[in-house]
Amino acid sequence: MDYTRQLDLALDRLHDEGRYRTFIDIERTRGQYPHATWRKPDGSDAPVTVWCGNDYLGMGQHPVVLAAMHEAIDATGAGSGGTRNISGTTVYHKRLEAELADLHDKPAALLFTSAYIANDATLSTLPRLFPGLIIYSDALNHASMIEGVRRNGGAKRIFRHNDMDHLRDLLAADDPAAPKLIAFESIYSMDGDFGPIAEICDLAEEFGALTYCDEVHAVGMYGPRGGGVAERDGLMGRIDIINGTLAKAYGVMGGYIAASAKMCDAIRSYAPGFIFTTSLPPAVAAGAAASVAHLKHDQSLRDQHQTQAKILKLRLKGLGLPIIDHGSHIVPLIVGDPVHTKKLSDMLLTDFGIYVQPINFPTVPRGTERLRFTPSPVHGPREMDALVGALDGLWSHCALNRAELAG
Amino acid sequence: MDYTRQLDLALDRLHDEGRYRTFIDIERTRGQYPHATWRKPDGSDAPVTVWCGNDYLGMGQHPVVLAAMHEAIDATGAGSGGTRNISGTTVYHKRLEAELADLHDKPAALLFTSAYIANDATLSTLPRLFPGLIIYSDALNHASMIEGVRRNGGAKRIFRHNDMDHLRDLLAADDPAAPKLIAFESIYSMDGDFGPIAEICDLAEEFGALTYCDEVHAVGMYGPRGGGVAERDGLMGRIDIINGTLAKAYGVMGGYIAASAKMCDAIRSYAPGFIFTTSLPPAVAAGAAASVAHLKHDQSLRDQHQTQAKILKLRLKGLGLPIIDHGSHIVPLIVGDPVHTKKLSDMLLTDFGIYVQPINFPTVPRGTERLRFTPSPVHGPREMDALVGALDGLWSHCALNRAELAG
Repeated sequence: MDYTRQLDLALDRLHDEGRYRTFIDIERTRGQYPHATWRKPDGSDAPVTVWCGNDYLGMGQHPVVLAAMHEAIDATGAGSGGTRNISGTTVYHKRLEAELADLHDKPAALLFTSAYIANDATLSTLPRLFPGLIIYSDALNHASMIEGVRRNGGAKRIFRHNDMDHLRDLLAADDPAAPKLIAFESIYSMDGDFGPIAEICDLAEEFGALTYCDEVHAVGMYGPRGGGVAERDGLMGRIDIINGTLAKAYGVMGGYIAASAKMCDAIRSYAPGFIFTTSLPPAVAAGAAASVAHLKHDQSLRDQHQTQAKILKLRLKGLGLPIIDHGSHIVPLIVGDPVHTKKLSDMLLTDFGIYVQPINFPTVPRGTERLRFTPSPVHGPREMDALVGALDGLWSHCALNRAELAG
Repeated sequence: MDYTRQLDLALDRLHDEGRYRTFIDIERTRGQYPHATWRKPDGSDAPVTVWCGNDYLGMGQHPVVLAAMHEAIDATGAGSGGTRNISGTTVYHKRLEAELADLHDKPAALLFTSAYIANDATLSTLPRLFPGLIIYSDALNHASMIEGVRRNGGAKRIFRHNDMDHLRDLLAADDPAAPKLIAFESIYSMDGDFGPIAEICDLAEEFGALTYCDEVHAVGMYGPRGGGVAERDGLMGRIDIINGTLAKAYGVMGGYIAASAKMCDAIRSYAPGFIFTTSLPPAVAAGAAASVAHLKHDQSLRDQHQTQAKILKLRLKGLGLPIIDHGSHIVPLIVGDPVHTKKLSDMLLTDFGIYVQPINFPTVPRGTERLRFTPSPVHGPREMDALVGALDGLWSHCALNRAELAG
């Protein structure tokens, strides 16, 4: 068996399809977001502006977050030293879980090391708690939800993205007595479109199903206290399990679910991905708790965020660039070819100091490769002008190239 | 469908079997490990000594680690702001991966948010890279390895714990041309026994199999530079993939694999659990890198660690307590009943201020429930005296109780 040759084949496939990923090595500068330093492969540095981060509100440099982290390190040290059960539960974890339960107006919340693990562990454990459970999963759900639904080989139905007729048909076709759960997202991050939360909750009620909503691209940013789209729309009480992240709008790291006390207790007790892993460092939990608490009150950051997204979309539309606009804060610019997307990204970085990563398969379907911009309160008019100007120039250049290739 | 009743049933099962977990809420005090503050359920505080943590060397309070974390927070902020591919690769991550590759004398290393995810993601991705792969997995492998091996339904063979004859039989029974991988641990954390690394490597060579060794309970602690048991025994070069953690001896958080450049590149490119998750906070990566670098040189901490473990085992043996001793740093004291184990743990905590969590099913097999002590360089003679004295008294008390129950 020639293992090296097999690895070569696997890597060659990626190169051949133009979707081999090259990680860009950057260091953001605290206090000067979105500005960062790009460490080039040759070891030299160049200044760049980050336009593709998920620190949507710039909370990663907020003084209340950093102060909380510094204080926790000084008080208690670096890591937690154990799993949650074996010496790794601290006052910091308990405080954060209380903040999150309050955020979503649920009796309880449960921390995980990431929202990926929160989805994977929770969705794969639910069939053990509800024998015979059928999970109805939106076709565009995040990889972590797909992995969780698939993991233990439980019954699943995939409904076409946001297609309520299809979901209804699937629900109606199954045994009315079977336990059911509908898993979906409030904002789908690649197109920036919203899930039909109210309609899904209606169907769940009609068919006696539980609801599981991933709000990772919404918590902190939507709703009067940052509870997400479900809070904005007054629907939190109709969702049984809310999944969120502390690594995007909250600017730190970690993930969670918020649900009933019994649901959290059962997941806590049965999910290997929760039980057998070291808990978050106290400093991370402290920083996240400070961020969540701050964003319960700071509506101005949410307003600025939406304003920046609106301005960028307006300006790009004005230039005739093919963006997708569903009214959320995410600004995808469709290129539709992995090689062109990569080239555009490379030129933006090298010639303009603008860092936006190409998004390619399997993150998005083939043929919809894109650049995806994440404007935020820290992207001012100067950064916006530079981006729009660069895209304007490059788009002409790219169109020229594509015309040549077509000929 | 009464979902609440199903949750009640699931939780009742745990209570009935005496294995419902209660998390103890503690805060270690930096500079005074293993001393910590226990926040009781009624809100009051009490001082405790932690005897069950996995911060085996006390690096979680080491000044070089904390300084690195503070500096990174000041320089770059709280979180990384993205996945490794989308704005979440920083100089801190690159530096840490270089430290780890060097530690294991491998061309490359790949960071994950935990060693749990490193195991799960790597082992579940290997069958995609090597179609038809058969994984031979030790029966006592950690939950994260079991989950990874099971996840995608690839071919697997479970060999009896450390049983080389059984492993040989299984290898010999399969198609010689099939790709194979043997997955095992260098130290099994529940009994503290060692895996037969050399013998496994011999069999792997004979049958053309890859080797995958989990060194999470060894890195930092064994080998002249902390490379683990495989380094101590001069066997690192014979292991294809080494898995390690930054959350135990290194005192911070995160996990990794070290392997060939192509192997790391392929896992990096194909594993959903790596691709779709926010990278570690720069401060965590910085603290971990400082810890790994420090322990490449600080042999005295490793020596103290082994000495403390030896002293504790000698003293407990001297009292006739049924500990397991395989010569590692882990000190399991078998109680053999979940209710008694919990009661002993409760009494140690309440009456003696000694915190050691009961270990019960599914972490260990039923009937082998235990208290597991993790002596470290920060546990001095005073802490040791207090523990041994308390156990001496309680053991008599416990034996008395068991005699009564038997009667």
